Amino acid sequence: MPEYALHPIGHVESTLTDRAAAPRQPDEGAPDAWLVFDDRYASALDGLNPGTDVLLLTWLDRADRDTLTVHPRGNTTRPLTGVFATRAPDRPNPIGLHAVHVLAVVGTRVHVRHLEALDATPILDVKPLLVPDR
Amino acid sequence: MPEYALHPIGHVESTLTDRAAAPRQPDEGAPDAWLVFDDRYASALDGLNPGTDVLLLTWLDRADRDTLTVHPRGNTTRPLTGVFATRAPDRPNPIGLHAVHVLAVVGTRVHVRHLEALDATPILDVKPLLVPDR
Repeated sequence: MPEYALHPIGHVESTLTDRAAAPRQPDEGAPDAWLVFDDRYASALDGLNPGTDVLLLTWLDRADRDTLTVHPRGNTTRPLTGVFATRAPDRPNPIGLHAVHVLAVVGTRVHVRHLEALDATPILDVKPLLVPDR
Repeated sequence: MPEYALHPIGHVESTLTDRAAAPRQPDEGAPDAWLVFDDRYASALDGLNPGTDVLLLTWLDRADRDTLTVHPRGNTTRPLTGVFATRAPDRPNPIGLHAVHVLAVVGTRVHVRHLEALDATPILDVKPLLVPDR
């Protein structure tokens, strides 16, 4: 089986430290947070501006990679659903995807609004917000 | 430096085979394509339904991981921009993100509209389409 290696480019600094207490969606009380990038990626941040919306990709390092089905939102009265039809963190390749609003850029530190990722979560990538194809 | 291992869960079947000829955005002539998942992930697809929009995460296996700045859309009259402010495939962790419409689900094969990923591109994950946080 092939395998691809990810290297974190930075990490999240947040007041969220406990997975059980973390909000399940960003609009459910997620705090503002800092994205702290490694200095070697400074030039890759050129053009990332305050006031824009971006997609943040993270590595959900506390996820269970053997989980294939879940009860949505942990509610056992809801039927088991495939993880590819949910945003559950537990999944074969636990890549977190977060739409965040950039509040400020200070060197290689980026302040963002409402991020539900836990403190110390590794950052993999940042991209412009996608426009859905309809 | 820490490192995380990704395992592909399937691959793209497409008529697109040449990176130079591939559309840069899905609305620029990308063909319909099939997502072919490994049988072991069949249960993870439960709840993925035709008619829905999903986010497909791929591994851009032909990308250059040392590129930190690019001319947007390859246009050298545009200033160099950090890759985190663009959707360029060349970037430190070349994870492709594609918003696609599900046309049909046939066992572990999923037919989708307008996908700009190349044939044989490894699939990493599928998630429900994000609603931006505003």
